[in-house]
Amino acid sequence: MESFAVGPLNKVRRPDRGNYDKAAVHSVLDEGLVAHVGFIDHGRPVVVPMVYGRVGDLFYLHGARAARFAKAMGAGVPVCVTVTLTDGIVVGRSAFHCSMNYRSVVLHGEACLVGDPAEAERALAAVTDHLLPGRWAESRPMIEKELRATAVLRVEIEAASLKARSGPAIDEPEDYELPIWAGVIPLRFVASAPEGDARLEEGVDIPASVQARVRR
Amino acid sequence: MESFAVGPLNKVRRPDRGNYDKAAVHSVLDEGLVAHVGFIDHGRPVVVPMVYGRVGDLFYLHGARAARFAKAMGAGVPVCVTVTLTDGIVVGRSAFHCSMNYRSVVLHGEACLVGDPAEAERALAAVTDHLLPGRWAESRPMIEKELRATAVLRVEIEAASLKARSGPAIDEPEDYELPIWAGVIPLRFVASAPEGDARLEEGVDIPASVQARVRR
Repeated sequence: MESFAVGPLNKVRRPDRGNYDKAAVHSVLDEGLVAHVGFIDHGRPVVVPMVYGRVGDLFYLHGARAARFAKAMGAGVPVCVTVTLTDGIVVGRSAFHCSMNYRSVVLHGEACLVGDPAEAERALAAVTDHLLPGRWAESRPMIEKELRATAVLRVEIEAASLKARSGPAIDEPEDYELPIWAGVIPLRFVASAPEGDARLEEGVDIPASVQARVRR
Repeated sequence: MESFAVGPLNKVRRPDRGNYDKAAVHSVLDEGLVAHVGFIDHGRPVVVPMVYGRVGDLFYLHGARAARFAKAMGAGVPVCVTVTLTDGIVVGRSAFHCSMNYRSVVLHGEACLVGDPAEAERALAAVTDHLLPGRWAESRPMIEKELRATAVLRVEIEAASLKARSGPAIDEPEDYELPIWAGVIPLRFVASAPEGDARLEEGVDIPASVQARVRR
């Protein structure tokens, strides 16, 4: 089982909650939809939500070439990318033991602008197919002008970890006798029926990508 | 209508997507569950998911007093707090116009440890009731030892903005004639039936807070 090396950047303080297994980290990245990307801009922390894609151990972001992130992050600056899945509200008998069940991946690395057009196109396919698996092949192909307007950033992963909590509330031993409810409220992120565009051409059906996403 | 002042820290580049109205910012903070909190630690950006609470314009975080965030953020350091609600997948006829519908609040400010026990307790009530409205009053009251073990941070909001996208895909004019499906897949975050703790006392019913959360 391949793992990320544990070091000061990614060591999870609570050993029972940390996981460095690559397959586990990848599965959270694949299930998440939006990453929160942190970087330093003019000496201050900035956190922006972004869609993303993964190709093996490579992590990709994209955006308009003119946007703040591309200017601030394009030159090999350190970034921290966090993807969080919220699985439930943990209701303890005391407020002190109320909590969340979650899975959260934190990546540290350097972001750099992708210069190679072939790599940029593979990355954009990965980002599109992460948002909606299979959509890249269904879409009208990207044209030169669009590729030029899009900045693609590759994050070389230096360190990564998965932190997770699951299961019931852990109350104080004496609190289990209290007449207070405790338990877990499971949370899920669900898709509902797709809303077709008002200007769809006649006879165009809902594609496989959308059908699969709604069933998931 | 009260608004946050617009300055270099919070100006949204795309004017059609930016909103500085306090009530709009607050409503996203109130609907979100987890904030992604960015700070600088040893010269690098760090982004951690955290639950939070709001009391008027005051934003509160909490955690174990021993945790990294409290040590790194307790002394009036700049933080960036981002709360993102993902409302839908926007499916364009081209990959270039695939996108997300979302509402995202970014706060900039300084975090400082709350020293006043009364303010700390009000903040912890706000955090608990943000996770599950009404839970603070239902829970076994916090005891001195628990309050001492908990660090509460107040973020003084210097700048804030809401950025949002909604509505259908905006495709290239010539792409509307293509026989390619486009539309929006709405996404929602839902709670399912609560799972009672295995050690519940007999006759303890599901409380109002949990019932309301599941119905929401």
